[in-house]
Amino acid sequence: MSIAESGEFGLIGRIVSRLDSGTATILGPGDDAAVVRAADGRVVASTDVLVEGRHFRRDWCGPIDVGHRAAAANLADIAAMGATPTALLVALCVPPTLDSAWAEGLADGLTAEAALCGAAVVGGDTSSSPTLTIAVTALGDLGGREPVRRNGAQPGDILALSGRIGYAAAGYTILSRGFRTPKMLVEAYRRPEIRYAAGPEAARLGATSMIDVSDGLLQDVGHLSTASLVGIDIRTAAFDMPDQMRDTATALGLDPYQWVLAGGDDHPLAATFPAGTRLPADWREIGSVHDGSGVTVDRKPWSGPLGWDHFKVN
Amino acid sequence: MSIAESGEFGLIGRIVSRLDSGTATILGPGDDAAVVRAADGRVVASTDVLVEGRHFRRDWCGPIDVGHRAAAANLADIAAMGATPTALLVALCVPPTLDSAWAEGLADGLTAEAALCGAAVVGGDTSSSPTLTIAVTALGDLGGREPVRRNGAQPGDILALSGRIGYAAAGYTILSRGFRTPKMLVEAYRRPEIRYAAGPEAARLGATSMIDVSDGLLQDVGHLSTASLVGIDIRTAAFDMPDQMRDTATALGLDPYQWVLAGGDDHPLAATFPAGTRLPADWREIGSVHDGSGVTVDRKPWSGPLGWDHFKVN
Repeated sequence: MSIAESGEFGLIGRIVSRLDSGTATILGPGDDAAVVRAADGRVVASTDVLVEGRHFRRDWCGPIDVGHRAAAANLADIAAMGATPTALLVALCVPPTLDSAWAEGLADGLTAEAALCGAAVVGGDTSSSPTLTIAVTALGDLGGREPVRRNGAQPGDILALSGRIGYAAAGYTILSRGFRTPKMLVEAYRRPEIRYAAGPEAARLGATSMIDVSDGLLQDVGHLSTASLVGIDIRTAAFDMPDQMRDTATALGLDPYQWVLAGGDDHPLAATFPAGTRLPADWREIGSVHDGSGVTVDRKPWSGPLGWDHFKVN
Repeated sequence: MSIAESGEFGLIGRIVSRLDSGTATILGPGDDAAVVRAADGRVVASTDVLVEGRHFRRDWCGPIDVGHRAAAANLADIAAMGATPTALLVALCVPPTLDSAWAEGLADGLTAEAALCGAAVVGGDTSSSPTLTIAVTALGDLGGREPVRRNGAQPGDILALSGRIGYAAAGYTILSRGFRTPKMLVEAYRRPEIRYAAGPEAARLGATSMIDVSDGLLQDVGHLSTASLVGIDIRTAAFDMPDQMRDTATALGLDPYQWVLAGGDDHPLAATFPAGTRLPADWREIGSVHDGSGVTVDRKPWSGPLGWDHFKVN
């Protein structure tokens, strides 16, 4: 059934019936606003928007995958402050001809990804639109800790990463060349795997700065460098590059480090820690902080593309 | 300068430079997420989306007006829970050809409307899109009070309204017929006037149910009726209809009560109170709650259209 046939309240009803309640949910969908626990006395909040044709394609990703991605992009921002996600709100703009099963799949993906970190969809809005658009707001709780910002990196700190990097960009390249394998990389693009607990963990370990890598490692580590007024060097030998990535790059005549250094969509967390911090298994040291400015790769400037600007066509 | 020329970070910079900080803002735009005071230990949150051609037209409303409307639609939802708005997050999808002055005007409108109730824009996201879309999330604080939901109306309660009703719908009709006056009604459509303080005030007075009227009075009071399992009667004699509205309706051959009963966009608050509640000046008694179900007008069923479905073409 198309959404035009089911109507706005029909669509909302179908979506809401698929949502779970989270431990922080006091009042979920169905009233003018939701009420969410904010035990800390502060709430962390972030918004990200996905636009069809810009951030996803329906022929590349099913609705459940898009739901996972839309939720993950926001939940990772909450984790990058050192907070624990509690809730999502979703504004969904859909063409009236869209099958309502697609919207239901999206709701399933959103709620499943949120559940991975104990959060839940608590509210939202729907509208018709010529352009399928999903704007998600995530809320989170700091649990009494100070937020880890971008501006605290100090010369002498180590730079570390939690989560996969370059996989999603490789998957994107594969799909855009009309291929469907290696499956592991295509799946990484379709559905990021985020270590949400690594954010609060980093905060407890004394992380001096942290960011969600969504626009490419160089660009996002560049934000840490700019905000902290330090130079940061990334060591390429630190990355564990799977054979599939190396082989695919060779087959396509590409440098796989372009995916690692400039690719988005994996949403790993990058953070700086005081030298000597014993990093747990979730975190891998990938570089160092020094006096100066800008980001270097193996102590040299990087000459490839830097990352993603949503207003430029890549 | 077009947004394609200024780029994503240029656009964000231009917008952020126009924003004010609110009293609840702990950390505003510029990091992975914002941090907002939630002194109550709970946070109220609501999302609304405006799509060009569906919720606004650029030839009918300037960017500052659209900013006011986008903020107001959300802030009113927070007030309707009996809460005080604290913060807004904004996802903005714009065609790359849009002049960045339009986005700046939008930011001015958003921040000005938020300031009317002590809130501020604390974060957001931007993307290019063929369809100009503004998704806003509002946060609020309950100040120790219980949220006023839709399901507490009791037989014997009075129904009351705070704010203008029908004005915006009249303005919409005027604009859609190609006219530009009466100015008062056209301006009411362009920029709603919301009594944000009336929400917490109603909660303190013991309101048993409350809703933001955004889809038409009959439809939204219908939500109170359905959620509370009661019948509600609206008394048309209770409305103060300005001469301009009456005269315009006569000139166009329309029933002005259609605007009052089925028009959206004014965002007044409708609430039920125990019989005998002394209503302050902000609130006007417009009906009563009784055993039964459904909404009647002057004790009779209403035969006109009921309100607004965003998937149907009006």
